[in-house]
Amino acid sequence: MHRLVLVRHGQSEWNLENRFTGWTDVSLTPEGAAEAGRGAMLLQEQGFAFDICYTSLLKRAIETLWIIQREMDLMWLPTRKSWRLNERHYGALQGLNKAETARKYGDDQVFTWRRSYDVPPPALDADDPRHPSRDPRYADVPVSVLPSSESLALTVDRVLPLWHDQMAPDVMASRRVLVVAHGNSLRALVKYLDGLSSEEIMGLNIPTGIPLVYELDDALVPVRHYYLGDPEAAARAAQAVANQAKG
Amino acid sequence: MHRLVLVRHGQSEWNLENRFTGWTDVSLTPEGAAEAGRGAMLLQEQGFAFDICYTSLLKRAIETLWIIQREMDLMWLPTRKSWRLNERHYGALQGLNKAETARKYGDDQVFTWRRSYDVPPPALDADDPRHPSRDPRYADVPVSVLPSSESLALTVDRVLPLWHDQMAPDVMASRRVLVVAHGNSLRALVKYLDGLSSEEIMGLNIPTGIPLVYELDDALVPVRHYYLGDPEAAARAAQAVANQAKG
Repeated sequence: MHRLVLVRHGQSEWNLENRFTGWTDVSLTPEGAAEAGRGAMLLQEQGFAFDICYTSLLKRAIETLWIIQREMDLMWLPTRKSWRLNERHYGALQGLNKAETARKYGDDQVFTWRRSYDVPPPALDADDPRHPSRDPRYADVPVSVLPSSESLALTVDRVLPLWHDQMAPDVMASRRVLVVAHGNSLRALVKYLDGLSSEEIMGLNIPTGIPLVYELDDALVPVRHYYLGDPEAAARAAQAVANQAKG
Repeated sequence: MHRLVLVRHGQSEWNLENRFTGWTDVSLTPEGAAEAGRGAMLLQEQGFAFDICYTSLLKRAIETLWIIQREMDLMWLPTRKSWRLNERHYGALQGLNKAETARKYGDDQVFTWRRSYDVPPPALDADDPRHPSRDPRYADVPVSVLPSSESLALTVDRVLPLWHDQMAPDVMASRRVLVVAHGNSLRALVKYLDGLSSEEIMGLNIPTGIPLVYELDDALVPVRHYYLGDPEAAARAAQAVANQAKG
């Protein structure tokens, strides 16, 4: 039996301001840091340990991982950071407040971008200072694969190579893997692991800071998955995330 | 011209208690964290940036690196953690107060262990709970190379493969490398880079928290090295470290 643990980072500065964040590198709020600490406590109470960690190149995920590693006294764990675990790229919407966006593009259009599986928002221009090709952290990534905007479908396409090439071999080698990432990069993994349809994944909301445990057989097919701690608390947290997305 | 930056972690809990620390995984004190923050400020003021970081498997070094990465907004940097950058292993002396050790073994013997280049202190038994073979962080290291006690000479021997196999290729590829480690693992690098004798390296004290910059030619021969910031402050800090070692 193999095991994989997924943690979604907690509240960031732009969650608080209700802005489209995507690849914008905003910090956790103190509440986001507290969520990470509570996630670490749940892992520790249940006796979890890990051999390797994965996270994105965005500091709200990295800081969440560092808090968990520090609380669990596992700062020494090898950690792979990859752009493939970044949040969905929100294109030209990044930085806009959600109400501003609705005024600018209309409610129907915004609803389509947010609720459709494969319609990406308007793209960033290649010469936009916010374009990932201008950020040194992506200097080793071919420009041709750096997104200017992503649907969830495109996010799934760029997350999965990391699963197939690195995470899955780790899990198959019985390494205990911890993944700390973002709402949509984790949705990409969950969609693949559980074989969900595009409708099913759009309806699935992963709560922040609550470890999601997958148990997988030797073919890496999930046998079961569950949230650590109080199931009611996980359900309420998922509903809160769903409401925020609607708001 | 290639560049390499070395930073020695600041004060730890056992520095404060004047105990032999070695591979014991003690935390930074608040003053140690402040030293790391001041080191980060020096790097930032001088416009330094990095492509890759190296540190040990001990949290006083990792936390120092994390503080520098956070302050410089470089949390996304790839980071390799290796047992080869750990502090010199102090064998059965680990955990002993320096005064206790002198009473137990005599001043002359302790002087020999601390000031000779190639005399290791008494070894830990293989079944001692403190032995690295019992610590999961070294599970991937063959037991035959895990130390039970080290002289500085033995420390040099185990640090250098990491230089030759990973750091030097990074530097040759013009990647800007940051190394955050310990007094003796950094001495090992400095001895090799500057071609120092065993007497010279025993007399060299690297101050804590002050970035030490090496500029190297294409053959990785140092052209010059210097401490960032006020040279007087670096000299005073080195003297303070030397006095602590004598104490």
